[in-house]
Amino acid sequence: MLSTTERTRLNRGKAKARTDRGELYDLLDEGLVCHLGVVVDGSPRVLPTGYGRIGDTLYLHGSTGARSLLAADEVCVTVTLLDGIVMARSGFHHSMNHRSAMVFGTPRVVTDEQERWEGLRAITEQLAPGQWDVVRPPSAKEMAATRVLALSLAEASVKVRTGPPSDEESDHATPIWAGVQPVRMVFDPPVTDPALVHDLPAPDHVLARVTRDEA
Amino acid sequence: MLSTTERTRLNRGKAKARTDRGELYDLLDEGLVCHLGVVVDGSPRVLPTGYGRIGDTLYLHGSTGARSLLAADEVCVTVTLLDGIVMARSGFHHSMNHRSAMVFGTPRVVTDEQERWEGLRAITEQLAPGQWDVVRPPSAKEMAATRVLALSLAEASVKVRTGPPSDEESDHATPIWAGVQPVRMVFDPPVTDPALVHDLPAPDHVLARVTRDEA
Repeated sequence: MLSTTERTRLNRGKAKARTDRGELYDLLDEGLVCHLGVVVDGSPRVLPTGYGRIGDTLYLHGSTGARSLLAADEVCVTVTLLDGIVMARSGFHHSMNHRSAMVFGTPRVVTDEQERWEGLRAITEQLAPGQWDVVRPPSAKEMAATRVLALSLAEASVKVRTGPPSDEESDHATPIWAGVQPVRMVFDPPVTDPALVHDLPAPDHVLARVTRDEA
Repeated sequence: MLSTTERTRLNRGKAKARTDRGELYDLLDEGLVCHLGVVVDGSPRVLPTGYGRIGDTLYLHGSTGARSLLAADEVCVTVTLLDGIVMARSGFHHSMNHRSAMVFGTPRVVTDEQERWEGLRAITEQLAPGQWDVVRPPSAKEMAATRVLALSLAEASVKVRTGPPSDEESDHATPIWAGVQPVRMVFDPPVTDPALVHDLPAPDHVLARVTRDEA
């Protein structure tokens, strides 16, 4: 269950709040980019970045020199998956079918080397599943240059909009087309690094990710 | 030209800052969702929302009752387009090819009715090009329920990462595959609202948006 706090309560709009923690996990596991919100000198800053999840913890990473992750201040991490463009009979009811998660909290700077390793593994695997075990693991120097943050999923909300437009009843008789244009992200066949020295094929786990449309 | 301020200067990372204002426009015009960062009671909040652009102004809208847009406080609007998963020979150099724009400023609450109308038109057309002129326009009641904000693009930065992995020279001889898996968003054929009273086909401007892959 996702508990409700003042800022995760959703009062407005057609998008429905979900309270199933499994939906939060599924959404986070499907996403690739999160938008990390921080306050710097009183001003908001929103940065796109990768992330990974292990259980009820979200891992983020950055350079030890990155200003936005210098202090373990309060953050808001938002992951949004766009599913469709909702085209209504009225301009007012145009909308997006989407799933979004917001996570609030103050991340912990991870110091335990084992957890730092597992966090970085989760972040890499979120981006490129199957890669961690086949690539060169981080060196001591690379580990030292990387800050790993852990954010609890204790305070999180999930918002989902699905389905057809929510037009006014009075507009239904109007002869205007209405519907949803589905939107999705696809993975295309991999492009090998032109600098590759060896004549190696892309690994199966990469090829398996290529989107194949049912024709 | 995009002018550089302290917070739009990019000091780190392989992603390159761009200074061409045309690149900012192109990126914003291609995106569908922005992530709006605000500070509420000292805490960051990041909300996915639609937007539209007219010249050097970004328009946002919300319900007049939405707490996050109550005051015209400072915001950061980030638009991120993901182009590919960068798979390196080392875990450390895994990355994302992406284009992202960050816009900083204090939005103006638009009060002029003509500008409010044009702003809403831009937001709707960004989401669903061609729809504004064929759907029922906003009623006086709907206009009254909608807050339109205008954010100047004066303080903005664009960051772009393209190309193959940036592996260490010392890793190049390693027999590990490396490359990029392209990622893109596709529009599928529209799904008509089951509640449509008239037997109307989806309009041409909607069908024209459907992604057609070269087979």
